[in-house]
Amino acid sequence: MPDSPADVVIRPAGIDDVPLILRFIRELAAYEKAEQEVVATEASLRASLFGNDARAHALVCQVAGVDAGFAVYFFNYSTWQGRQGLYLEDLYLSPVYRKVGAGRKMLQHLARIAVAKGCGRFEWSVLDWNEPAISFYKSIGAIPMDEWVRYRLAGEALANFAADGG
Amino acid sequence: MPDSPADVVIRPAGIDDVPLILRFIRELAAYEKAEQEVVATEASLRASLFGNDARAHALVCQVAGVDAGFAVYFFNYSTWQGRQGLYLEDLYLSPVYRKVGAGRKMLQHLARIAVAKGCGRFEWSVLDWNEPAISFYKSIGAIPMDEWVRYRLAGEALANFAADGG
Repeated sequence: MPDSPADVVIRPAGIDDVPLILRFIRELAAYEKAEQEVVATEASLRASLFGNDARAHALVCQVAGVDAGFAVYFFNYSTWQGRQGLYLEDLYLSPVYRKVGAGRKMLQHLARIAVAKGCGRFEWSVLDWNEPAISFYKSIGAIPMDEWVRYRLAGEALANFAADGG
Repeated sequence: MPDSPADVVIRPAGIDDVPLILRFIRELAAYEKAEQEVVATEASLRASLFGNDARAHALVCQVAGVDAGFAVYFFNYSTWQGRQGLYLEDLYLSPVYRKVGAGRKMLQHLARIAVAKGCGRFEWSVLDWNEPAISFYKSIGAIPMDEWVRYRLAGEALANFAADGG
């Protein structure tokens, strides 16, 4: 095990990383108690992260030369700011590679992409019971948008509403 | 005033709509008690909604031939689904044009774009005190993601964290 963040290297993911990313997605979903919601496949990840129309981007984090985690992000938009922001959809590190500063390095790498791309904001979401993550986010100056609730229309409800002539 | 949703027409916004969109953005921010947070200008909207690198899209809603409201959306991403979703960043109707079914027509128009683009989800966020909106969203089958809290790093906190070597 490394004992310093100096052993942490972050690189853009390539199409050959798709099996690794899918493994990490499943591990993260298991941690979030939602394994059954993962319907992504290697084919869907190849198309959606590396196809011509891809709008999301992936990073791989290596610790001491071993693939230890990943992040997926995309650019969102703020009308109030009149410019784009960076939204971190997922960040995951295998348990054995936590507490060596790799999570902080990943977030910092993403913050730098946000600044370089002229983003006004860097945002992500966290489960309200994930206290260790929340206290880390607050320690770096992130603010909870806790007045806002996201609503989701999906599956049959989405298909029905789109089809409804009324 | 129209008395039927048949008078509602939704069209993609063009660059000539920028002054109208900015007026609507300010009206919406005032409703959300956040006027002071609007830093968007006509120039920033032109670049971010209609520039080469634009990732967000705007619609204008006309009621009985009058510009009555707007919506801005972009495509987000779900790792669990391995595909993109449609995220509605803002939807606004001038007060006088509410209650004629225009809001429902706007949401339905967006749901159809989501389905046509192969999105697995159609999502948006609402302030937790906006009861009329929430009860409408529930009536069409939308589910609150109320276990999730969005965190935001912006302004000086973002710049500092990105610059911090640690």
